[in-house]
Amino acid sequence: MWGGRFSEAPSDVMQRFNASIGFDQRLAAEDIAGSRAHATMLASQGIISEADRDAILSGLEQVETEIAEGRFKFSEALEDIHMNVEGRLAELIGDAAGRLHTGRSRNDQVATDFKLWVRGTLDGLIEATRDWQKALVTLAADHVGTVMPGFTHLQPATPVTFAHHLLAYAEMAERDLSRYADARARLNECPLGAAALAGTSHPIDREMTAKALGFYRPTANSLDSVSSRDFALEALSAASLGAITLSRFAEEVIIWSTAAFGFVKCSDAFSTGSSIMPQKRNPDAAELLRGKTGRVIGAFNTLAVTMKGLPLAYSKDMQEDKEPVFDALDTLGACLTIAAGVTGSLIVNKDTMKAAAGVGYTTAVDLADWLVRELNIPFREAHHVVGRLVATAEKTGTDLHELSDEALKAAHPELTGKVREAVTVEASVAARKHIGGPAPDAVNRELVKWQARLALK
Amino acid sequence: MWGGRFSEAPSDVMQRFNASIGFDQRLAAEDIAGSRAHATMLASQGIISEADRDAILSGLEQVETEIAEGRFKFSEALEDIHMNVEGRLAELIGDAAGRLHTGRSRNDQVATDFKLWVRGTLDGLIEATRDWQKALVTLAADHVGTVMPGFTHLQPATPVTFAHHLLAYAEMAERDLSRYADARARLNECPLGAAALAGTSHPIDREMTAKALGFYRPTANSLDSVSSRDFALEALSAASLGAITLSRFAEEVIIWSTAAFGFVKCSDAFSTGSSIMPQKRNPDAAELLRGKTGRVIGAFNTLAVTMKGLPLAYSKDMQEDKEPVFDALDTLGACLTIAAGVTGSLIVNKDTMKAAAGVGYTTAVDLADWLVRELNIPFREAHHVVGRLVATAEKTGTDLHELSDEALKAAHPELTGKVREAVTVEASVAARKHIGGPAPDAVNRELVKWQARLALK
Amino acid sequence: MWGGRFSEAPSDVMQRFNASIGFDQRLAAEDIAGSRAHATMLASQGIISEADRDAILSGLEQVETEIAEGRFKFSEALEDIHMNVEGRLAELIGDAAGRLHTGRSRNDQVATDFKLWVRGTLDGLIEATRDWQKALVTLAADHVGTVMPGFTHLQPATPVTFAHHLLAYAEMAERDLSRYADARARLNECPLGAAALAGTSHPIDREMTAKALGFYRPTANSLDSVSSRDFALEALSAASLGAITLSRFAEEVIIWSTAAFGFVKCSDAFSTGSSIMPQKRNPDAAELLRGKTGRVIGAFNTLAVTMKGLPLAYSKDMQEDKEPVFDALDTLGACLTIAAGVTGSLIVNKDTMKAAAGVGYTTAVDLADWLVRELNIPFREAHHVVGRLVATAEKTGTDLHELSDEALKAAHPELTGKVREAVTVEASVAARKHIGGPAPDAVNRELVKWQARLALK
Amino acid sequence: MWGGRFSEAPSDVMQRFNASIGFDQRLAAEDIAGSRAHATMLASQGIISEADRDAILSGLEQVETEIAEGRFKFSEALEDIHMNVEGRLAELIGDAAGRLHTGRSRNDQVATDFKLWVRGTLDGLIEATRDWQKALVTLAADHVGTVMPGFTHLQPATPVTFAHHLLAYAEMAERDLSRYADARARLNECPLGAAALAGTSHPIDREMTAKALGFYRPTANSLDSVSSRDFALEALSAASLGAITLSRFAEEVIIWSTAAFGFVKCSDAFSTGSSIMPQKRNPDAAELLRGKTGRVIGAFNTLAVTMKGLPLAYSKDMQEDKEPVFDALDTLGACLTIAAGVTGSLIVNKDTMKAAAGVGYTTAVDLADWLVRELNIPFREAHHVVGRLVATAEKTGTDLHELSDEALKAAHPELTGKVREAVTVEASVAARKHIGGPAPDAVNRELVKWQARLALK
Repeated sequence: MWGGRFSEAPSDVMQRFNASIGFDQRLAAEDIAGSRAHATMLASQGIISEADRDAILSGLEQVETEIAEGRFKFSEALEDIHMNVEGRLAELIGDAAGRLHTGRSRNDQVATDFKLWVRGTLDGLIEATRDWQKALVTLAADHVGTVMPGFTHLQPATPVTFAHHLLAYAEMAERDLSRYADARARLNECPLGAAALAGTSHPIDREMTAKALGFYRPTANSLDSVSSRDFALEALSAASLGAITLSRFAEEVIIWSTAAFGFVKCSDAFSTGSSIMPQKRNPDAAELLRGKTGRVIGAFNTLAVTMKGLPLAYSKDMQEDKEPVFDALDTLGACLTIAAGVTGSLIVNKDTMKAAAGVGYTTAVDLADWLVRELNIPFREAHHVVGRLVATAEKTGTDLHELSDEALKAAHPELTGKVREAVTVEASVAARKHIGGPAPDAVNRELVKWQARLALK
Repeated sequence: MWGGRFSEAPSDVMQRFNASIGFDQRLAAEDIAGSRAHATMLASQGIISEADRDAILSGLEQVETEIAEGRFKFSEALEDIHMNVEGRLAELIGDAAGRLHTGRSRNDQVATDFKLWVRGTLDGLIEATRDWQKALVTLAADHVGTVMPGFTHLQPATPVTFAHHLLAYAEMAERDLSRYADARARLNECPLGAAALAGTSHPIDREMTAKALGFYRPTANSLDSVSSRDFALEALSAASLGAITLSRFAEEVIIWSTAAFGFVKCSDAFSTGSSIMPQKRNPDAAELLRGKTGRVIGAFNTLAVTMKGLPLAYSKDMQEDKEPVFDALDTLGACLTIAAGVTGSLIVNKDTMKAAAGVGYTTAVDLADWLVRELNIPFREAHHVVGRLVATAEKTGTDLHELSDEALKAAHPELTGKVREAVTVEASVAARKHIGGPAPDAVNRELVKWQARLALK
Repeated sequence: MWGGRFSEAPSDVMQRFNASIGFDQRLAAEDIAGSRAHATMLASQGIISEADRDAILSGLEQVETEIAEGRFKFSEALEDIHMNVEGRLAELIGDAAGRLHTGRSRNDQVATDFKLWVRGTLDGLIEATRDWQKALVTLAADHVGTVMPGFTHLQPATPVTFAHHLLAYAEMAERDLSRYADARARLNECPLGAAALAGTSHPIDREMTAKALGFYRPTANSLDSVSSRDFALEALSAASLGAITLSRFAEEVIIWSTAAFGFVKCSDAFSTGSSIMPQKRNPDAAELLRGKTGRVIGAFNTLAVTMKGLPLAYSKDMQEDKEPVFDALDTLGACLTIAAGVTGSLIVNKDTMKAAAGVGYTTAVDLADWLVRELNIPFREAHHVVGRLVATAEKTGTDLHELSDEALKAAHPELTGKVREAVTVEASVAARKHIGGPAPDAVNRELVKWQARLALK
Repeated sequence: MWGGRFSEAPSDVMQRFNASIGFDQRLAAEDIAGSRAHATMLASQGIISEADRDAILSGLEQVETEIAEGRFKFSEALEDIHMNVEGRLAELIGDAAGRLHTGRSRNDQVATDFKLWVRGTLDGLIEATRDWQKALVTLAADHVGTVMPGFTHLQPATPVTFAHHLLAYAEMAERDLSRYADARARLNECPLGAAALAGTSHPIDREMTAKALGFYRPTANSLDSVSSRDFALEALSAASLGAITLSRFAEEVIIWSTAAFGFVKCSDAFSTGSSIMPQKRNPDAAELLRGKTGRVIGAFNTLAVTMKGLPLAYSKDMQEDKEPVFDALDTLGACLTIAAGVTGSLIVNKDTMKAAAGVGYTTAVDLADWLVRELNIPFREAHHVVGRLVATAEKTGTDLHELSDEALKAAHPELTGKVREAVTVEASVAARKHIGGPAPDAVNRELVKWQARLALK
């Protein structure tokens, strides 16, 4: 395969250690697409004959079919997908196959194949993110008026609406998606023609192959073309952020579906039981969403460690680029699908949510705001007044709106029973109607925006 | 500070553990800018009086001066920069200070401050990257004709030009820079007004504060506003990729400046010596560039681990967001400055580079290409022919162009001495003139593009 | 500082970039201890005079005092702690100071200093872990009979005792501690005498310095001595595992102290409030314990990335070893102290725990076990029978022990009311009395073991 | 499988997402061993009959054979290896199979299986490390007298011997190995009997199963038993350190085998060529050793992220523990084998090494030591004197021992030609004969120790 200068073959352990065909066979479609574009260009430039081109193209079609039908025999001795395809091509069409590698190398070939794969997969992630957003927005549309406690530090903070909470994830997912799109746009330059590292002495047309493969343009520097994997790292870092978003959603589903919270329940379709405890119904789907964050972040770390400190141009270390990318992007894609399924089939317990919304003096800040607004007390002082009221209420086991007129007056002489209407859960939520607020009015404005963006209505 | 509901103060260890003023004092300027915008808006909306606003603005100016002049006393008991500023404001202007916190919380405040800091720092990284690119392009302009060996696997591969090698880094840096720019654009929505998590019952104008602080618009969801740190993670991941680029450049400078390679020497200004070995001259600057990659990647990892699985909205874990971001972005900024310095003062040994360019049969592929072009031999076969020739040459200790006519003919009957002119280092480089190639012609085209982009000419 | 071969000083940016005195001044005590041992050995071997030794020792004492009293002026131009100490020594004692560096280098000096620091810090972590274990065991002693739900997937699983749950953390902490101890033992070989990388031509006595500094023996290979940082990485990995243990404890404290769970409350001393919501009482201490896991894991990652692929011997990259180690081990030490404080002052709500212990059919497996034991039904079949009973109970909103005799018989003809006594929470817990079980009997056996180990009784 | 309480099966995507049989089938042997021990104990305790035990044991043997012979049909619907084995057992032996799961759960089963696998794999890593050490020591025995430059900062520093350099890796590997051994010892407690999380109401004998499976003892706390994966994390962190050791060795092989260095050449058995450049001979084995460090460190990171913040007891997130451990420990094992092969077949160019040993004024410190020893000049001053001499020598292009008497005297009045014998490479090396030094005398002492430890002689 590498010609005549070696007097001994690689040892068996080395052959296994070195071969990438076990995983890079996944790039077969991209590799064949790249070879098609290359052969077509070579003929167009007169570097190979039209007859050779035709033989190559028809041979590649045959190879493609064999792989698609699972009839292709992958060989470890041929190291990788590139040599496996070329090797079979030689069996099928003879000498012409030996002309396909003119003016290219496995280094630019693999960079091209891998970019094509990542590009296609990012498109898939964008779509899968949209599916999750649709599930979030669809569920939100049913819960614009569903009041629940908003939390900070997982302690009851201020009432919000469930729709508002769901749309927070839609926003987060939107930024995740825009990172996939940015990564896709940035990588879309074609390395083909960089050959091993320095281009070729043949008069190739790189614009032509770039265009044929859907790239914006050829890369501008041959060394960079075969040495850089920032496109893979960027995809992995964007995926890591996407996975973190999902891990937070998952944590909430897990907590909300505890016996103590009881806000939601995962459907049977996304729950599992126990081999020993017959009563169990576990939110396994959400736990896996959370747990799989590790492998996505780990994959970024893997490739970052591998790329750190590598001199130009291609080093064999870079063969380690594919497995973490395949695994992490596959994982994230599956996670988004599961997240959409979990969201879409979530059983929501509105009453429990609502009951919890008022627990824990969640409207204390409304009371403080009332003092500011009605009595013109500085907020910082109002905060102290209400703090003392909460301490009193806690001691007597009452809620804020149940405090007696005396208790109110004791806290501040001008504080009257009129404040009670400001400290209901409903009033608290309804008042927060500015841009980005949880009030049904504000959430409805956002919903309209989302439904249009997702073509839901 | 938190009002009246606590009966006991935090323990001393807790106060130290909890306080962030040790590091978030760095956000003082951003915090004051945010408070200015907020106070101005509050008055404009009639939530506070114009007199209070004026008192606040003039007090903030005083605080800003005290901090700038190092006269400000930061207090750990006041936890963070927000309470330190507000506390001092209260001392300076009395009651009006207590009105500043109307309709906001430390949660939206810190998200705003931190976004402002990251935004400004990304701008700085863009500029520092440009400086390094200028150094690279300026050096490249002197070395369009400087031939050196191109490497793959750190073995001699094919001759390239030093300018071409330098411009590979300019390309890599350009993508790094575009990631900083994307991160900047994506984060540029204003969280102010999200308050603790749910907005406020006061009639605030979020468009106004967003505009005042240079944001494109307010954020669309209050929960997302205070819960998300993807902007920080994205900055860190972009920085990680930038650091990896530098680590690779550094590795090459280190290897190139070994006694064995001798291609370059770092200037005295970027070298250091040894406490024990008087002859030493070490490329410490380059080693630190390489070594500091760890802390940038580690910072991404730190924050990713912290954010994983956090429920909405703000949790105290998120206080851990600032130190890794400060450290990593500071580090990367310093590294870019050092890289520009190292590049700009690099001592290049052209003769050594050129002599090395022909070592190791680096034009073997040119010989193969000649066979393809002149004798119409399939490339794969030509590769085998040349492989055998290299084995012969290696055995006899000769170079390719020194092989006898007999040796050539033995390898292939039609292989004649005419091939010798194709296998010189100069011919090899000159032939690679397509887009992205290392030939002086191709590199000059790129140089023109770069000089225009960087306004160097 | 490095003698006469440089014609130009480092640039200002380089001096700042290169200097480590900003952080390695923390090694002052270790550095002086190392110098004392070295000077004493040099005199003992006749390499320096006794008079010089005495001058050096008395000068070092003076330096030590100046540093302890904060009077020492650290200089960035002198790069690091080693040169700062030697520089000041020269001012104090003149020429003799110039003899201290005989037969050593900063490379073996820093390896020695850093090992001494890590060794001492690991001892501190062992002690801090013991303190947390004491708090856990002391709290457990009060809660041997406190029943609570055991969870899997955060769903009610089987009743356990709170003491049992607390002792799980004692076990985890014990393995953490044993890792610190192993790391300490493994690092305890003295690098001093390895000099820059190759030892020295002076007749030094490495056994003597090793012994003086409390090491087991000198290291066996000079190159390894100055090149390896596995001791630091091992300390960081052990710390990472310790931090993960704490993050899990923290997560539980956070969840248990939610309004919905209400199992525990952090004391005022370890809680904080909100700047906007007067009612808030947040488990910030626990959240920080959880959040700081990121920086400890990140520190391991930082140093792993830095060390990856470094050729022997010392490279300047390795100067990046100290900051992550300082930060991560400091952080873990503080976290352990906080964990002990949180545990020791935790307010436990036994009644809420007990009430929750029976919610969610937590004794379903006891019912299945009863079927196995009393009716000799295969467990897998019993599991199915009980699964159906749970479905029935859930539908009718009853608990297992409330199921009618008819319902029981319908599930299995021989299932009688006698089963009810086996499915109480108390019976369930009491039955699990084998080694490692949650029954009070079993837990008491463990408690005795723990109290002896921790010298608590 | 989970009994009767679910009304709907998992969705298809969920079934795929949830199933672990794709990777945990690898635990088949451990799972069956655990079931054997468990069934034997159940019968011994009278919990099942001896007839049932016998049926189970013979059924398990049948299952084992089917798996070994590749005839076993793994089913995704049965989720994991535990249910696959039990399911097949039920087909083979009927009802008795349903008694096997008495008093255990998949949670303690998987913890036991996984510990057994990690334990066995750590044993394999210890052996593989020994093999690499043998290759290092065997090669070192041939190169006790082979002088080469010692490097710091990859710059020539002081001459060492190649044997000394190789033994540095033997030392590093020894600590790696001792970490595997510590991890193995620490994990060797048996979780079986912890059941789902709380043990069981059956009168099991945990000492008996622990002993049967080669564990030191049963674990002491059931919650800890099923919740902890520190044993896996510790194995991964130890593996990360081992991989870093290999990455450094690999970096050196790569650099040493460059055309410029030429110190060594990898054998054909561990090299590969290029698809385009016929002359290429690349150290791919070493590059893969270096590159694969990423996935080992990444695997630690993956699992650390996954475990962070998980509440007790078992959560489904923990199913993500196996793939990174399988992959990382397999990878490290393969890397050690490759490292042994590369080391054992390395082609060493002694003459090139020796010639390089004197380049770069590597004996400058010997000259300084001479001044200290013979003229009683303080080292710091001697360092300056020699620094100036090096500057002179560099300017005149001479070596240190070629400096004229005048040049010597100019640097220091008492510096005579006698110094020349101290500054030869041979003298420099020979003088470093203390413990841990590179002198042949010192290295021979170490070699004897190593050969005994590795039973090589």
